[in-house]
Amino acid sequence: MSSVLTLLTDFGWQDVYVGVMKGVIARINPDLQVVDLTHEIPPQNLAAGRFCLLNAYSYFPEGTVHVAVVDPGVGSDRRGVAIELAGGWLVGPDNGLFSGILSQYPILAAVELTNSDYWLSSHPSQTFHGRDIFAPVGAHLASGVALSQIGQSIEPASLVSLPLQQLQITETSITGCIQYIDHFGNLITNIPEEMVNPSWLVKVKDTIIAIATTYSQVKQGEAIALVGSHNWLEIAVNRGNAQKNLQLNWGDPITIFK
Amino acid sequence: MSSVLTLLTDFGWQDVYVGVMKGVIARINPDLQVVDLTHEIPPQNLAAGRFCLLNAYSYFPEGTVHVAVVDPGVGSDRRGVAIELAGGWLVGPDNGLFSGILSQYPILAAVELTNSDYWLSSHPSQTFHGRDIFAPVGAHLASGVALSQIGQSIEPASLVSLPLQQLQITETSITGCIQYIDHFGNLITNIPEEMVNPSWLVKVKDTIIAIATTYSQVKQGEAIALVGSHNWLEIAVNRGNAQKNLQLNWGDPITIFK
Amino acid sequence: MSSVLTLLTDFGWQDVYVGVMKGVIARINPDLQVVDLTHEIPPQNLAAGRFCLLNAYSYFPEGTVHVAVVDPGVGSDRRGVAIELAGGWLVGPDNGLFSGILSQYPILAAVELTNSDYWLSSHPSQTFHGRDIFAPVGAHLASGVALSQIGQSIEPASLVSLPLQQLQITETSITGCIQYIDHFGNLITNIPEEMVNPSWLVKVKDTIIAIATTYSQVKQGEAIALVGSHNWLEIAVNRGNAQKNLQLNWGDPITIFK
Repeated sequence: MSSVLTLLTDFGWQDVYVGVMKGVIARINPDLQVVDLTHEIPPQNLAAGRFCLLNAYSYFPEGTVHVAVVDPGVGSDRRGVAIELAGGWLVGPDNGLFSGILSQYPILAAVELTNSDYWLSSHPSQTFHGRDIFAPVGAHLASGVALSQIGQSIEPASLVSLPLQQLQITETSITGCIQYIDHFGNLITNIPEEMVNPSWLVKVKDTIIAIATTYSQVKQGEAIALVGSHNWLEIAVNRGNAQKNLQLNWGDPITIFK
Repeated sequence: MSSVLTLLTDFGWQDVYVGVMKGVIARINPDLQVVDLTHEIPPQNLAAGRFCLLNAYSYFPEGTVHVAVVDPGVGSDRRGVAIELAGGWLVGPDNGLFSGILSQYPILAAVELTNSDYWLSSHPSQTFHGRDIFAPVGAHLASGVALSQIGQSIEPASLVSLPLQQLQITETSITGCIQYIDHFGNLITNIPEEMVNPSWLVKVKDTIIAIATTYSQVKQGEAIALVGSHNWLEIAVNRGNAQKNLQLNWGDPITIFK
Repeated sequence: MSSVLTLLTDFGWQDVYVGVMKGVIARINPDLQVVDLTHEIPPQNLAAGRFCLLNAYSYFPEGTVHVAVVDPGVGSDRRGVAIELAGGWLVGPDNGLFSGILSQYPILAAVELTNSDYWLSSHPSQTFHGRDIFAPVGAHLASGVALSQIGQSIEPASLVSLPLQQLQITETSITGCIQYIDHFGNLITNIPEEMVNPSWLVKVKDTIIAIATTYSQVKQGEAIALVGSHNWLEIAVNRGNAQKNLQLNWGDPITIFK
């Protein structure tokens, strides 16, 4: 059975940055199954990276290594880390990118990446730790190297946290925001499934939208609110693009009310 | 020898939807060879999906499983199906997406996906059957599960058909339309190779174009008509973009005449 | 241990062209590890292809086969070639695409692709040699077929060369140009690391920029010059997009001076 290693970056597909990381991985272990989560995180958008990692994590096999590189602080003194959870490993910069997953899964162990024996070279570039540190460390972990070999143990509580924006909750309303906009223009809020009362209504700007269960409950071109496949309340347009129709953007407020 | 499973969707590369489907597949069988046909079908454009599937199908190994998800009716009562052909299997929504392939290859058997033992869970989401039903069913098929296990047999004739737009044929002309526009701006018509007489001319809008055999038979920047690598008549511009130069779009008419 | 085959094209991800090449490869050997270097080379931009191949080459395992298709002359009489280097193989059109790699790594042997036994069919299309010739030849090479089997030996010196634009060097300045612009808007020049004196300054248009070692040495939104991860001098903007901020484009001149 092949081990699985995933990659999530903001590198895009245009350049060879992702290909080069896969070359580095293949030199260590060409039999790893490498899966691209996405490489189109908006540049340096840690919140989008956190959202995508959290939504993908639970679907992968036990023992999968997730290498994630959204890294505005590369070359500064931010730490590189590897984290062991019950279901898998995380490798990347310590900048909050993993804090969605870490808020939901207990941490078994964490290390700072200090052992350059597992890097591409002992003199990494100042600009591309994905290639020089994170990809090779991930490939070694996925190939059976112990976490304790790759760096010094650190306190899980010391990991940088990037919390979700807080919901404003009253007896008759909950106000959150748009935390992610997908390729279809669906607007994904930070209001979780368990807080959504299907008899309430949604207000975005001056538009009132009913909460439903499938896209096809409204006519083509009409807006609908529903709990999406990732278990957050989302706003969609049946066979259309909610972002364009409603002219909304990342971070815009969304209220649900009685 | 690894088994091959392909994915074709309109999910784009921005989000983790495709990555999550690969996670679900890897949990079932991490040794499958997963190939992306494309994830950039224009959202909910069944005709483009049909075209792409047909053009890719014959190049894959015997026994390949093709999972395709362009699925505007997800959450409605449209069926999910799996189809066995001489050369491989198809898995996805029953909405005409496969009708290009089915018009050319005989159907050996077809089932409706009714056995939730082969789904991600027995309570699939209303919005993401790619993850919850089609990817896991495809992975099980590619791993050797029998078609008869995954659902109830259905009549091949009952599968939804999405035929190509009909050609208008006279003694001196054939009028078709642009059925697909590729990344290079090449305009692919629905006029098949066997109907193309190389001595005829092509008319698009008010432009007359000769039929040739290679791009380099005209000067840089000039339009040319030729039978492309997928065996349809196409309009291209040597080292240029025919869509932009000729200002044409999906569905626009194209005539060839004596 | 799996053999590795990489693909670099200007086909984009929208169409099934890349997927079809992978189908052809899987029919020959489904156990190859296929890695996408990039498919977003700007259409027919040989210089970008040369740059990307050179920057990726050294990171792959010994024996990797690199199949590259940026091929404006497809269907003309330009040759198809396969080249053996100490570290790997190259397969593609003989149009200069490989000349970055060939300027730095000695050629062990080269052949013209004349043996159609290793093609998809003996009658290749006029428009898609990536599918019909280069992908199958690459898959056969990666599976152990000898170079001498796949075509007639040719003189390495006869391979088409596409040299970098020459630097203008004086005692107090070096003028080069922008040879590549990446996804982040970083402007990569053709001035190599060994010619960069960190005490000099960079001039682009009317802007003077200091040479530094990491992005974070300047404030957010400020321009910086540094030797990037590919060992060329590049202009970046800390947490921003240098191309947009400085309004520069491919080929624009860059001067460094005392």
